[in-house]
Amino acid sequence: MTIRVGVVGTGIMGSDHARMLGRIISGAELGAVFDIDRARAEVVAGALPTARVLDDPQALIGDPDIDAVLVASSDSTHEALVLGCIAAGKPVLCEKPLAPTAAGCRHILDAEAAAGRRLVSVGFMRRYDPGYVELKRLLAGGHLGLPLLLHCVHRNPAAPADVASGHLITGSAVHEIDIARWLFGDEIATISVHTGRSSRAAGTTRDPLLLILETTGGVLVDVEVFVHARYGYEVRCEVVGEEGTVALDAPAPTLVRRDFTVGRGLAADWRPRFAEAYRRELQDWVDGLRGISTGPSALATAWDGYAATAVAEAGVTALETGLSQKVDLRA
Amino acid sequence: MTIRVGVVGTGIMGSDHARMLGRIISGAELGAVFDIDRARAEVVAGALPTARVLDDPQALIGDPDIDAVLVASSDSTHEALVLGCIAAGKPVLCEKPLAPTAAGCRHILDAEAAAGRRLVSVGFMRRYDPGYVELKRLLAGGHLGLPLLLHCVHRNPAAPADVASGHLITGSAVHEIDIARWLFGDEIATISVHTGRSSRAAGTTRDPLLLILETTGGVLVDVEVFVHARYGYEVRCEVVGEEGTVALDAPAPTLVRRDFTVGRGLAADWRPRFAEAYRRELQDWVDGLRGISTGPSALATAWDGYAATAVAEAGVTALETGLSQKVDLRA
Amino acid sequence: MTIRVGVVGTGIMGSDHARMLGRIISGAELGAVFDIDRARAEVVAGALPTARVLDDPQALIGDPDIDAVLVASSDSTHEALVLGCIAAGKPVLCEKPLAPTAAGCRHILDAEAAAGRRLVSVGFMRRYDPGYVELKRLLAGGHLGLPLLLHCVHRNPAAPADVASGHLITGSAVHEIDIARWLFGDEIATISVHTGRSSRAAGTTRDPLLLILETTGGVLVDVEVFVHARYGYEVRCEVVGEEGTVALDAPAPTLVRRDFTVGRGLAADWRPRFAEAYRRELQDWVDGLRGISTGPSALATAWDGYAATAVAEAGVTALETGLSQKVDLRA
Amino acid sequence: MTIRVGVVGTGIMGSDHARMLGRIISGAELGAVFDIDRARAEVVAGALPTARVLDDPQALIGDPDIDAVLVASSDSTHEALVLGCIAAGKPVLCEKPLAPTAAGCRHILDAEAAAGRRLVSVGFMRRYDPGYVELKRLLAGGHLGLPLLLHCVHRNPAAPADVASGHLITGSAVHEIDIARWLFGDEIATISVHTGRSSRAAGTTRDPLLLILETTGGVLVDVEVFVHARYGYEVRCEVVGEEGTVALDAPAPTLVRRDFTVGRGLAADWRPRFAEAYRRELQDWVDGLRGISTGPSALATAWDGYAATAVAEAGVTALETGLSQKVDLRA
Repeated sequence: MTIRVGVVGTGIMGSDHARMLGRIISGAELGAVFDIDRARAEVVAGALPTARVLDDPQALIGDPDIDAVLVASSDSTHEALVLGCIAAGKPVLCEKPLAPTAAGCRHILDAEAAAGRRLVSVGFMRRYDPGYVELKRLLAGGHLGLPLLLHCVHRNPAAPADVASGHLITGSAVHEIDIARWLFGDEIATISVHTGRSSRAAGTTRDPLLLILETTGGVLVDVEVFVHARYGYEVRCEVVGEEGTVALDAPAPTLVRRDFTVGRGLAADWRPRFAEAYRRELQDWVDGLRGISTGPSALATAWDGYAATAVAEAGVTALETGLSQKVDLRA
Repeated sequence: MTIRVGVVGTGIMGSDHARMLGRIISGAELGAVFDIDRARAEVVAGALPTARVLDDPQALIGDPDIDAVLVASSDSTHEALVLGCIAAGKPVLCEKPLAPTAAGCRHILDAEAAAGRRLVSVGFMRRYDPGYVELKRLLAGGHLGLPLLLHCVHRNPAAPADVASGHLITGSAVHEIDIARWLFGDEIATISVHTGRSSRAAGTTRDPLLLILETTGGVLVDVEVFVHARYGYEVRCEVVGEEGTVALDAPAPTLVRRDFTVGRGLAADWRPRFAEAYRRELQDWVDGLRGISTGPSALATAWDGYAATAVAEAGVTALETGLSQKVDLRA
Repeated sequence: MTIRVGVVGTGIMGSDHARMLGRIISGAELGAVFDIDRARAEVVAGALPTARVLDDPQALIGDPDIDAVLVASSDSTHEALVLGCIAAGKPVLCEKPLAPTAAGCRHILDAEAAAGRRLVSVGFMRRYDPGYVELKRLLAGGHLGLPLLLHCVHRNPAAPADVASGHLITGSAVHEIDIARWLFGDEIATISVHTGRSSRAAGTTRDPLLLILETTGGVLVDVEVFVHARYGYEVRCEVVGEEGTVALDAPAPTLVRRDFTVGRGLAADWRPRFAEAYRRELQDWVDGLRGISTGPSALATAWDGYAATAVAEAGVTALETGLSQKVDLRA
Repeated sequence: MTIRVGVVGTGIMGSDHARMLGRIISGAELGAVFDIDRARAEVVAGALPTARVLDDPQALIGDPDIDAVLVASSDSTHEALVLGCIAAGKPVLCEKPLAPTAAGCRHILDAEAAAGRRLVSVGFMRRYDPGYVELKRLLAGGHLGLPLLLHCVHRNPAAPADVASGHLITGSAVHEIDIARWLFGDEIATISVHTGRSSRAAGTTRDPLLLILETTGGVLVDVEVFVHARYGYEVRCEVVGEEGTVALDAPAPTLVRRDFTVGRGLAADWRPRFAEAYRRELQDWVDGLRGISTGPSALATAWDGYAATAVAEAGVTALETGLSQKVDLRA
């Protein structure tokens, strides 16, 4: 059985996903693509003969030859598309965020509950990164004792200037929010945000931000988000436990000695860093749809998507008010 | 189009390959398996519903529902199986060595030439490892100036004691022989072998060995092979050029601090180290068979398999005689 | 000219200092030692024939054969001893803290001002560590653009349980407070403290602590202090600038591969980590006393000692109240 | 007691030593300097008021106000100067080589034996490098099982072109020859030299060289010497034992992230790399002369200097003849 996937949105991420579904993922094929820029969709489909270009995303969702949908269009479209998939009974993998507001996510939670079965997954791909996976495994094995702290760094070399500062939380730190929840199996209880001097490259945006979260279990989490870091893309994560620590190592295929420096190259963006995570995530999603998974899935659920958005929303309030915010997911 | 692959030999490597073809490789399925231990083949096939268990490897090769063959059985069977594939006009990916003797490899070269088309590939998977690929790319880009030296280390934590010392060359260093040829686009001109004290764990085997090769282009290559290294599996490779050097970095997903040590874990054998290389190699092979490759293939050819075996054979002579050996591939 | 130094306090640090002054520092000799445990002082003096054991620290300070004094006794004695040195017109290098309270430090500032010349130095030895020195040099060279963030980690493997939590700030994080001031040439403007779950090894002590400071120039500083880290002694420091970052590297003389791990050893305490820093600090102090310094000294002044204590004091208040504290050095 | 040291030769190394003796080494002072370029000697003495400039090295050796001599003049002068020190009964620390020929070294051995007491030390400073010291300690502790291999790399960024190729052995690899002897407590039994393509920057010099040595205990040693490595100064050393390996780590004070690279700086020459080794070596020499050493000295003896020169001499023959050479120290 081959899963025919329809991809909505063929920007940078969507076209990567489409290519992987068509060429790399076992048991999947690219059935159809939609993009508001039809020419962009045609480029993707042109390289993959099984794919049709459709003109309406809801028609794509409803198409009987489409078994499942991957949503990679702009954030503001996610809620309606995911609700459309639920209505059509189609499994959907939605890039983060599930929806830009916690209220939007709750609509999806309600709709999925009403549908009576799990259809929605959210693309928090880091859960499939070999580094994060090993980190969670070592933590779960008790190797570190009880976890006490989580240090995170999330740096992009460049971003548009003058964006709303809150976007650093909703668009970037949301990955760390999900990872903290996933690593410790806890919700986030509080969030506060510190700011100091900002990079002049950021214009009016406060950049970097320093977030402090606390999980319901008492683990303190700090996150540096810096999207004009200039020097390269980099993600760090270290769990500090009672007996020791475990950190992501910096994976680099080679070490170069030249010009009085011995160095490793850094990526220009997140895609090479998480290429393997994306592949494993998609393969796991497709394996689940084919019924051949060999273990429990790590895919983020609609609830995970909701919780991440709700915490990020509280973070934006913390940033704007300067006050620590409690997160109440039952609100 | 899906390529139905038959796998001959379902030991450690063969069963890994079978699982990947059935679960991970896009555009492939596992069509049939054979092993001299039928029970072992049945375990593999049981997990993959498309696969039949056959009782005769030549019947597998000739089976009209099998499009291509992967040979992962014991070394001594390779020549006959690959010749069978050529006779049947079936593409074959043969684990190294192509054949245990240079003479056997020449039979295959002759048969493939007579068949008039390329059917044979050899499983030198390191050519697909991201580290070696980047190393070759940097070298080819002229970043290092002319290459002068290649330092290699190849260590296994454990191996049977008392094996013939030459097996360290034919079974292990053969990977470095292929990599040196592939990196520099040159043949190996000479080989000599140095030995000193051996590990007591090796019994009568000379272990470690230190090989010195020179390419036809004048690059000096040294290779430590040590198969009772105890501490873990490790492969190193550094090209020294006129302007700098580039080395494989040690990939590890995490860094652990515990017990007054900060450390990275080392693998117990080559499979986790080269898992991604195997996946990319198989996907490239299958893409080629499907006609959807997007660039030239790095797959080792029958000639590559022959050259590697011929150099290794010269290395065994060098070890036994204590004399440097010239390698003449036209012999 | 040889500087005859008297050492008050021959505990762990004092005996190290005494040994260095007697054996390692050019231009110095150990003239006398005092310790409240006379036997301990005699052990030190016994190994260094130039040293007398005295029974009264103020007599040591006043001894005409003593040119300068190193204070390494318990914190509560520092103020009186340093005031004694000022009164006697003797140069003094006082281990941190200059005094346990900001008020005590101000007494020293006033006394030194009244004496009309600089006599007091404070042992913030990290300013002489090759890593911190290079970090400051790269920062000063504009290599990183404007500094935005400073990330610090300060971990000790073990400490007494049930100590006052504030001691993590006054005894440990005070080093990071000084380093932040020294690196950026700014004062600390605000300090707040976050706590989460504590290590069970710490008893009633809140451990770890997460401090957030902001410099008058707007650099945000976070400091993890964790004195029951179990796994080893470790100090980290990374400056994040607009163009890149520079971090202390982890110095280790060797890399060991054994038991499926490749690792570096970690120290059991701060002394091996900062041995070279202590040597350079003492040599610089002695060179200054001999009038042969070749450049400006990095030695912390009485003002530096006061500022560090004042910030730490505000940190203790922040910890106790849960509120961010402004630091006013003119108070 | 202060040791008044006379320094013969105030080139790069000699002036460093003179400065250290005058400013850094406890218990020493610089008594006199000589250089064939008197102006150069005057610069050194001008910065250090205790030092006189003398016009004749043998007069310096014989000067009653000079307690010990450091020889850092050109290689060809070493033998006569060291013999002069022995004749005058003055302790001497001679930079490597003790003498350029094994025969010259034997004259020194004979003269020292006739003098009836140890006067001669040779400046193989790596024995004091913290990395090599820890490597030897771990090896001696049995942590690695029996040693089997030693891998060495010795690279300089630049050197004069067209020098005799043998100089790479006598001037550079001689350090590795001494280290191999010191680490294993064995003599070198055989040496052979491999060459391939040379760097075009080296002119007529064969560069790099690959040396293969075997100790009398059976440890195989390979040494890459490359003195036009362009990219920086670097020394590596790894002992491979039955149970694991230990290697020098690359010490660097900081790690810089900039321009899509995370890297460590490399030194331009050996002096920063071995600054601490030189300091400890000189301090140990002076402590020994003062009679306050606290343990056995690691200083290389005249015999060590002879053995290193004899092995290097055999290496030059191996390079010129292409044949492996046995080393017979009783010749």
